[in-house]
Amino acid sequence: MALTPPPITDIRETVRRALAEDVGPGDVTTLATVPLTRQAEGAICAREAGVVCGLPVAREVFRQVDDSMAFKSLVRDGTEVAADTTVAEVRGAATSVLTAERTALNFLQHLSGIATLTRQFVGALGEAQARIVDTRKTAPGLRVLEKYAVRAGGGTNHRQGLYDGVLLKDNHLAVAGGIEAAVQAARAAVPHTLRIEVEVTTLDELREALEARADAILLDNMSLEEMRRAVELTAGRALLEASGRMSLERVREVARTGVDLISVGALTHSAPALDLSLEIRRTW
Amino acid sequence: MALTPPPITDIRETVRRALAEDVGPGDVTTLATVPLTRQAEGAICAREAGVVCGLPVAREVFRQVDDSMAFKSLVRDGTEVAADTTVAEVRGAATSVLTAERTALNFLQHLSGIATLTRQFVGALGEAQARIVDTRKTAPGLRVLEKYAVRAGGGTNHRQGLYDGVLLKDNHLAVAGGIEAAVQAARAAVPHTLRIEVEVTTLDELREALEARADAILLDNMSLEEMRRAVELTAGRALLEASGRMSLERVREVARTGVDLISVGALTHSAPALDLSLEIRRTW
Amino acid sequence: MALTPPPITDIRETVRRALAEDVGPGDVTTLATVPLTRQAEGAICAREAGVVCGLPVAREVFRQVDDSMAFKSLVRDGTEVAADTTVAEVRGAATSVLTAERTALNFLQHLSGIATLTRQFVGALGEAQARIVDTRKTAPGLRVLEKYAVRAGGGTNHRQGLYDGVLLKDNHLAVAGGIEAAVQAARAAVPHTLRIEVEVTTLDELREALEARADAILLDNMSLEEMRRAVELTAGRALLEASGRMSLERVREVARTGVDLISVGALTHSAPALDLSLEIRRTW
Amino acid sequence: MALTPPPITDIRETVRRALAEDVGPGDVTTLATVPLTRQAEGAICAREAGVVCGLPVAREVFRQVDDSMAFKSLVRDGTEVAADTTVAEVRGAATSVLTAERTALNFLQHLSGIATLTRQFVGALGEAQARIVDTRKTAPGLRVLEKYAVRAGGGTNHRQGLYDGVLLKDNHLAVAGGIEAAVQAARAAVPHTLRIEVEVTTLDELREALEARADAILLDNMSLEEMRRAVELTAGRALLEASGRMSLERVREVARTGVDLISVGALTHSAPALDLSLEIRRTW
Amino acid sequence: MALTPPPITDIRETVRRALAEDVGPGDVTTLATVPLTRQAEGAICAREAGVVCGLPVAREVFRQVDDSMAFKSLVRDGTEVAADTTVAEVRGAATSVLTAERTALNFLQHLSGIATLTRQFVGALGEAQARIVDTRKTAPGLRVLEKYAVRAGGGTNHRQGLYDGVLLKDNHLAVAGGIEAAVQAARAAVPHTLRIEVEVTTLDELREALEARADAILLDNMSLEEMRRAVELTAGRALLEASGRMSLERVREVARTGVDLISVGALTHSAPALDLSLEIRRTW
Amino acid sequence: MALTPPPITDIRETVRRALAEDVGPGDVTTLATVPLTRQAEGAICAREAGVVCGLPVAREVFRQVDDSMAFKSLVRDGTEVAADTTVAEVRGAATSVLTAERTALNFLQHLSGIATLTRQFVGALGEAQARIVDTRKTAPGLRVLEKYAVRAGGGTNHRQGLYDGVLLKDNHLAVAGGIEAAVQAARAAVPHTLRIEVEVTTLDELREALEARADAILLDNMSLEEMRRAVELTAGRALLEASGRMSLERVREVARTGVDLISVGALTHSAPALDLSLEIRRTW
Repeated sequence: MALTPPPITDIRETVRRALAEDVGPGDVTTLATVPLTRQAEGAICAREAGVVCGLPVAREVFRQVDDSMAFKSLVRDGTEVAADTTVAEVRGAATSVLTAERTALNFLQHLSGIATLTRQFVGALGEAQARIVDTRKTAPGLRVLEKYAVRAGGGTNHRQGLYDGVLLKDNHLAVAGGIEAAVQAARAAVPHTLRIEVEVTTLDELREALEARADAILLDNMSLEEMRRAVELTAGRALLEASGRMSLERVREVARTGVDLISVGALTHSAPALDLSLEIRRTW
Repeated sequence: MALTPPPITDIRETVRRALAEDVGPGDVTTLATVPLTRQAEGAICAREAGVVCGLPVAREVFRQVDDSMAFKSLVRDGTEVAADTTVAEVRGAATSVLTAERTALNFLQHLSGIATLTRQFVGALGEAQARIVDTRKTAPGLRVLEKYAVRAGGGTNHRQGLYDGVLLKDNHLAVAGGIEAAVQAARAAVPHTLRIEVEVTTLDELREALEARADAILLDNMSLEEMRRAVELTAGRALLEASGRMSLERVREVARTGVDLISVGALTHSAPALDLSLEIRRTW
Repeated sequence: MALTPPPITDIRETVRRALAEDVGPGDVTTLATVPLTRQAEGAICAREAGVVCGLPVAREVFRQVDDSMAFKSLVRDGTEVAADTTVAEVRGAATSVLTAERTALNFLQHLSGIATLTRQFVGALGEAQARIVDTRKTAPGLRVLEKYAVRAGGGTNHRQGLYDGVLLKDNHLAVAGGIEAAVQAARAAVPHTLRIEVEVTTLDELREALEARADAILLDNMSLEEMRRAVELTAGRALLEASGRMSLERVREVARTGVDLISVGALTHSAPALDLSLEIRRTW
Repeated sequence: MALTPPPITDIRETVRRALAEDVGPGDVTTLATVPLTRQAEGAICAREAGVVCGLPVAREVFRQVDDSMAFKSLVRDGTEVAADTTVAEVRGAATSVLTAERTALNFLQHLSGIATLTRQFVGALGEAQARIVDTRKTAPGLRVLEKYAVRAGGGTNHRQGLYDGVLLKDNHLAVAGGIEAAVQAARAAVPHTLRIEVEVTTLDELREALEARADAILLDNMSLEEMRRAVELTAGRALLEASGRMSLERVREVARTGVDLISVGALTHSAPALDLSLEIRRTW
Repeated sequence: MALTPPPITDIRETVRRALAEDVGPGDVTTLATVPLTRQAEGAICAREAGVVCGLPVAREVFRQVDDSMAFKSLVRDGTEVAADTTVAEVRGAATSVLTAERTALNFLQHLSGIATLTRQFVGALGEAQARIVDTRKTAPGLRVLEKYAVRAGGGTNHRQGLYDGVLLKDNHLAVAGGIEAAVQAARAAVPHTLRIEVEVTTLDELREALEARADAILLDNMSLEEMRRAVELTAGRALLEASGRMSLERVREVARTGVDLISVGALTHSAPALDLSLEIRRTW
Repeated sequence: MALTPPPITDIRETVRRALAEDVGPGDVTTLATVPLTRQAEGAICAREAGVVCGLPVAREVFRQVDDSMAFKSLVRDGTEVAADTTVAEVRGAATSVLTAERTALNFLQHLSGIATLTRQFVGALGEAQARIVDTRKTAPGLRVLEKYAVRAGGGTNHRQGLYDGVLLKDNHLAVAGGIEAAVQAARAAVPHTLRIEVEVTTLDELREALEARADAILLDNMSLEEMRRAVELTAGRALLEASGRMSLERVREVARTGVDLISVGALTHSAPALDLSLEIRRTW
């Protein structure tokens, strides 16, 4: 399947807030110096190599500032580009281009940064079969877009929030009276459309989770050796997710243990921005 | 002066959105496994050394989830802590603690990451006098909080948005017919409460800006030598801001040229998260 | 587990909208005839037998109208009460009681109606093991509360929306190129925290879905005989959900076929309101 | 006059909320299985006979999901249709059709259910002159649309909320010191654009209300005989509204007493949904 | 009856917006110069004589900025005060007092201005019986509060908006085919809780309106002589509202013609602000 | 430069609120009497001479009510027109024209009133060089538009809010320990893009402010003679702003003292509305 986009309704609202934040009562610099009738054509360029993400969001930024503006994407989100690639062109009132510029770039640089780091993790897997998945460690208010960027980078999404997946962590397990009890309680109460995932830190806990018939098991901060054993013990009875400070160096080793999923918080909480800029090509 | 906080009204609204995003129709895991009457006490710990930021935001997260919850900060925002320092304690219904946990941590890890990187840049200045300032390259929707984190790290804020500062960039200058014309146009149109800053890339442009009586001048991607000359030429007639891909290595050299301000986009667009966690200490 | 409540944040926002709708610029009748200093005590009574639901929502209605008002629930949501049972008491300014009355009752009568009908369906199962589940056929804007009412009535929730469960219907299957292809496509793209459910109308399709290793299968409008065969064929390899115009008469027969879940749209789209009223007991 | 529509601004906002509720972070099923380029044509059909209502709302649902979609109503709201009538056609991206489907149907089935029940009450009047009116017993957040559905069914609206009509109930009367005092107080305080209606339970109270020159009088739970007497006593000096658990069987008798209005809470609080579905006719 | 207040829900939302507008990302002046621990006590004073209005709104402003602040009203809304009267006292963090000051005063000066002008019109009536009523000519977004201020000044409210009163103007009459037809159409379609008012410009039209049994009639820009004739002709069969550029000089003459209501757009669209200020009495 | 417009995003939201306020659940009069198919052409006319302002806002009002409506401005905002000038024409469904009419006019009359009063103040300066500036004394929720109206009248804006300018008033100065200390504190903490303005009431304070190198100095309620001395003492080292109950009579005298700016609160808090109306020219 092609890259699946975020809901347009989410994009609209997120862009609305971003523009309110940056433009506020008005772009005093531009309005003071640029005539309203001046037209401009600009190019959005990636100044470094990476995976582009956020073009439909950037398009919406320009549209909300001025719905007579033309925006043309030259690549699709998820495309890996070389440094100095023009990824989109925009044309319309010069004041609108300048006012929308920074907000559009902020989305692009942030989402492209996430997509680029994800692609690096995916690439680091080599021939291993595991999927790179994200976490809920996202910038507040931007989760839907950040998870989209992870998909654009070739990653797969973990649950979006507390509502679309069950993940029983140590605190839940302790209060509920152990893994067996917790899994049963969850099974009884949550929609049957949700799988039950259990976090374990030892192989003994893994065995308990398997006995409780957990659908997925998160191996928290296990050693490579433990993970290999976990894969053997599980023997396909549950999905296995490896978790805990993954680095680009370590991820291939982890994948080779045979786990199904490797979750990486850094994809969303620590991806550096990709450098993009908007250059005015001409005005008239 | 002490660290100045963001408006509580902004915190409330940002937290409201973040909780809606994470909790959505409900925390199915916690509600299925943890009795509503169970109480818990938790500690928020920095797992690595850094500058803590976001505690009042975390407090608001817990308050919105459950206004009977007790939240106690053990340090103030802006404090540099060692690894494994408890920075806050929270007490109340176990379900509320668990539901609020990730959203609270997401704010803390993001803002503390920014404060920590800022502190590193400020520290890298050594005895030099320049101020480290942020930019508008922020995560959409989080600017007010991110700029607060820069202050917590010892940095100083540049303008918040397009409305509280004038920065004439190449595109404005080109359209307006040069530096002199652009400065005059801005002077005539914008509130007198705003300074006029001009971006220049050469010493000739610097001279023009000085003649136009710009209040501040941004030296874009200049060499150290050019910056030194710029400081001499300016002789205190305008504030000088150095800009362009600053690194922790280069920033002291730049500061030694005598510029007044050094703006660093990475503070907000590329700061890695600080690792914090919430540990349930006991339940009853 | 006890009945799990909806997020307080959702209750607050839904109540805010409901009050804006009913009170608008002001309760002209009450303000014209009742002095602001007059106090009142009222009782909320169920005038017919049923399952009460919505008391925390009613409490929030009174709180938003006047946060000095006292509200005391006499029963918990999910309780089956006889006709003429007082379920809550409220005390405070008479104007506030009267202004909040209808909005509070509207929530109570609607949610109690759903809980009551759900309880009837659950009761109709007799000793059969199936669970009664709801659907997405809800009143727009009230889904979280309506699904809460289903839980209060003893039902179980199906997915909340399009985001927390996969349900492959005929249209998806047709476009995707059949059951096998659709299940694989879903498996590859959606978070691993979600189960894959497939809607089938024939036993042949059921076999295909089982071969494709669907996690759950919705039997759409099958006869009792077909359902029995489906249960045999499935032999525990997938959850089976029966669907299609369930009535209180037919539901026990359906449950006896051995299906795991019986979904009933009428729970939320056609439950008649339960009759509740607010009586002012005294004023002073 | 033709059926008067609700404000487009209200429709837009109500649809926006409904979509946020159902789609949330995304329709995972559709996006995983249906290519973004696939087109589809669908038909919205009434599967049972009834009065259609909500087509402009459904149109807005599709428009908000995807503004390039074509929506064509084949009947007007308020039309009585036979079972298996196609009431609208929709064409556009298959993903958009499938994502919007349930939300559009939820509005249609709910509003058509109300319109259909209203039409039954209106029809039950026979040749009697009374008008069927609604109440404020509506689903929170949907009142404007529900009252529109009552009009579509041939009913007439009572006041929208606490702000556009005065209805003095027993509590108001008691606190204000009787009917005479209450009517005078209301007359003095409320906009002159509003009529004053008084609720009475006995003929003595009716006489008081007439003496106080109430504009309208609500006869609460009176017997048919009492209502007939009330009509005689009033002799056209005030509008008379009959109220209290109306059934389709009883309403004609009530109308024959000569009352002007008969209010029926069930129109909005207990109307079963009308069964409508969306069928994909073809895709390409 | 005492002055009836606006809904607290309306006050909250209006204040929220006003603070967002004035404070935005932060009160830079106060935060830079006033320590967060400094306490202050301030007095809100009317610097000129007038009718005070808006104290509950001002209270809410301080509460939203800082809910630990104490606010004490010394007079009630609607009180006529002499110049230099302290109308309220506020105590709490000095930063909060200073940040909230202007927003609180803006509400007070605007609403008190309207109340004061209204009181002047009411006073100008002398012993005449007419009521002074407002119009829909209000500042967008402030209508509920402005109409409250009219009540505080002793005026009476006309309809709040297009929804709580029927006013048939020339355009409606022309399109509907005359007064008789328009009144009948309105009578048939609008809730029976609303009166029907017709705007007329001549005595002939007045006669038509009376024949059509309009409940109220607006005499648009009539001479005093015409108004006197209108009162005679009407003989109590309808309420009469005089309208058209009222001045303090002319209003008593108009009232003496015997009309029931005199509507004055200037109350809300042209009332000059009343001068109020906040003085810090002490800090510690 | 031409008149700089407010952000379209601000206009949209302000109009949305205004329509919700006026139309609410519906324009009962128009919908009862005007067929939905009736078309109309209307003219918006200034009934008295003045400066027109708000046409893009009025356009947005009509667009939100009905996006198929045509709106044509005949003059630009900021144009001075004679009495009885048609300033815009509108064409579309008669119901839409009538429903939007009052909201559109309310914006126009309010903003034109401000523009007109501003133009009078600017005109009163004669050949003097000072600029007329506004204040933060605005109608809550309308500041961005009111400050736009000031620009349309030929005035200049002061800061928009507490965030885009520093104004140290007596309370700040007292708490901070005097002018010198306050200016330094502000200089250290606020973005360098903001100027520091100090309010003074005596010439001694002026000298202090000059020594502290304030960028601008507000002369509060000084006599003409004091202002003249202030101008001499300052000798161009800071901008001087005169403030305190300006009248059209006094403003030229003040300007002649040589101050740079004259701030006038009345521009926004006490401007009477300009009289505009909408006339239906024909319907069909």
